[in-house]
Amino acid sequence: MAGAIGYLGPKGTFTKIAVDSMFNGEVKKSYKTIPECVDAIQDEEVEYAVLPLENTIEGTVNITLDYLIQAKEVKIVSEVIVPIRQHLMVHKDNVKSWKELDVVYSHAHAIAQCHTFLHDEFKNVEPQTMTSTGAAAEFVSKHPELNIGAIANHLAAEAYELAIVKKDIHDFSNNHTRFVVLHKKDIPLTSTRLEAKGNKTTLIITLPSDNPGTLHQVLAAFAWRKLNLSKIESRPMKTGLGNYYFLIDIEAKMDDILIPNAIAEMESLGCQVSVLGSYPYYLYNGNGVTLTV
Amino acid sequence: MAGAIGYLGPKGTFTKIAVDSMFNGEVKKSYKTIPECVDAIQDEEVEYAVLPLENTIEGTVNITLDYLIQAKEVKIVSEVIVPIRQHLMVHKDNVKSWKELDVVYSHAHAIAQCHTFLHDEFKNVEPQTMTSTGAAAEFVSKHPELNIGAIANHLAAEAYELAIVKKDIHDFSNNHTRFVVLHKKDIPLTSTRLEAKGNKTTLIITLPSDNPGTLHQVLAAFAWRKLNLSKIESRPMKTGLGNYYFLIDIEAKMDDILIPNAIAEMESLGCQVSVLGSYPYYLYNGNGVTLTV
Repeated sequence: MAGAIGYLGPKGTFTKIAVDSMFNGEVKKSYKTIPECVDAIQDEEVEYAVLPLENTIEGTVNITLDYLIQAKEVKIVSEVIVPIRQHLMVHKDNVKSWKELDVVYSHAHAIAQCHTFLHDEFKNVEPQTMTSTGAAAEFVSKHPELNIGAIANHLAAEAYELAIVKKDIHDFSNNHTRFVVLHKKDIPLTSTRLEAKGNKTTLIITLPSDNPGTLHQVLAAFAWRKLNLSKIESRPMKTGLGNYYFLIDIEAKMDDILIPNAIAEMESLGCQVSVLGSYPYYLYNGNGVTLTV
Repeated sequence: MAGAIGYLGPKGTFTKIAVDSMFNGEVKKSYKTIPECVDAIQDEEVEYAVLPLENTIEGTVNITLDYLIQAKEVKIVSEVIVPIRQHLMVHKDNVKSWKELDVVYSHAHAIAQCHTFLHDEFKNVEPQTMTSTGAAAEFVSKHPELNIGAIANHLAAEAYELAIVKKDIHDFSNNHTRFVVLHKKDIPLTSTRLEAKGNKTTLIITLPSDNPGTLHQVLAAFAWRKLNLSKIESRPMKTGLGNYYFLIDIEAKMDDILIPNAIAEMESLGCQVSVLGSYPYYLYNGNGVTLTV
């Protein structure tokens, strides 16, 4: 299906917020797992796919990255950062009795993120876990006869016509989820709806041996070129414990000189370097853009 | 309750494998969320707690770390690394018909990790997500009348008396989960059952500004002392996008000279450094130790 957008479903999740903030009017196709979504891009079932890369509620970073490294022809062409905001919501019939809820449903991670609120306001209510925040909202929408609530995002409230009775109940503000847009061609995707915050280039660097000096030299290649890094993360190789590769985000667009020269220098030290993408990044904070659910 | 061990439940999960590999005979108390478990240590409801720190199926690293950084009196005193091995299991009554399963149940991440196996062997079976691999195993154990299977670990098979019909069905071998043992006193916990693989010291380092040069200097402080790093990860500060702190694991025990001097040097550069713990680490690979479920 040409032109379709794949994403990690179901509706009402944070991934759906990300996909709706970047795409408007296209056919959107939900997949149950991250690998199915990567396959869909490779097999050209969809033209773009949106997946969580960091800090998400329902997905895991590691799975996206594992499959992305395997799928060499798939590139990151854009990124959207979505603040994680959790709200308490109930069926519209039960707005008046929300303080006496019998059960609160949500994904386990969302329940954990709202620990202080639940501890202070619903100490005697046993939270029940569901497979996603969207599934929790759906369950609440189907049971107006029960005095129950869900913890989920604002899109889930809209999708399932629930009333938000308490906003922003998460313990730590400024938690964000990073979503990447994947595509088979290495062409940056610019948003017509969100304002670009800057550009990033993501590299995977494998060091020649488990040597702290080499990492230090690698970082020197960026430091003296004043290439700012917005992320560095070591991750275990699939070959066993004790071997690592590095995931590095440079706060710059791929250019003709600085980044290629830094890569050439790292390669001369015996590193293997691959570029996962060079792309603009966006922040969707819920202001100014109306999402189509 | 003095002497009790808290952990992230339910039974049959990877966290339970970690807790059983480190503790034997103690009272074990399961908690529904990571923050509840950290609270239990702080409030001295339990003496030790075992939580996932990296790469887990059911938990998230970020939540453990967020609450650990807040709970300053709680230290990491030990670590156990558990390989993530996923098996297909069915009710003992249904062993003969496992190739014709109608539904496969598991946690969404476990389903994603077994993508290739499911794609090749059960292409027309729709996998169903549950809140944990343990919950999936429990569901299968309660429904011998249905021809269904679960993807879970060997402990879940034992706990719910299921038959493993296909071992090691995960796509990537050498995936590991790191679990940390938390305690209120900064005294390393040695295992009498597992063999120590080495020692680690975990530091949280906040740089004075978002400056690639400072990170380079920080790593120099380790490199010239030949302090090997087994992990480095930048993580966003809770104050907003663009500010980072670093989580660093040094492959060494806290000593009187090298690590304190490196910390003093980093502090003189304007960094804030805190030590989350200095502790031995263990690998539980399922050999030689019988777990008490």
